[in-house]
Amino acid sequence: MKFQAEIDVMPKKEILDPQGKAVTGSMKNLGLAEIQNVRIGKHISLEIEAESEAAASEKVEQACKSLLANLIMESYSFTVTAV
Amino acid sequence: MKFQAEIDVMPKKEILDPQGKAVTGSMKNLGLAEIQNVRIGKHISLEIEAESEAAASEKVEQACKSLLANLIMESYSFTVTAV
Repeated sequence: MKFQAEIDVMPKKEILDPQGKAVTGSMKNLGLAEIQNVRIGKHISLEIEAESEAAASEKVEQACKSLLANLIMESYSFTVTAV
Repeated sequence: MKFQAEIDVMPKKEILDPQGKAVTGSMKNLGLAEIQNVRIGKHISLEIEAESEAAASEKVEQACKSLLANLIMESYSFTVTAV
C-alpha cells in the first residue's frame, strides 16, 4: 500500500527563531500588526510504500530522527494517510 | 479573539525541488528506499488577533500573498483555529 506522509519540523519553543522574528517585524511594516509570534520551520511531504499504516509511521519516524529533524533544536510531528 | 494559524508553503508540483530530490536520494542510503517523492517546503505558525475566524483567515491570506509565499513558485494552504 502507498501512504502519504505530511511532516512538520519546527524549531523548539525554547529556541530563538531569528527568521520568524524578522517576519514578525515585517508584518508590522505591511500593516499586519495583528500578526505576532511567527515561527518558521519546514514542511515535508513524502510518499511511502508499506504494508500497514503502523509500518509507514515507523519508517517516517525513523526518517525524521535520522535525517529530517535535528532533535537538539527541532521537534517534529506528522500524519500518515493511505492514498 | 486570538487565533493560531498553521501555514504550509510548498513548491508547486510542476517545479523541480532540488532539496527534496537530494533527500529522496539520501533515504536510499539510510535503508529507507520505500520513501519516495520527498518535497520540502516551509511550515509557518503564527498568532493573530482578530474579531472572527473569517477576519483572521483574511489577514493570513494577505500575509501569505504579500510576504510568506512566492506565488510564482510556491502554493500555500493554511488552517486557522481559535485559542
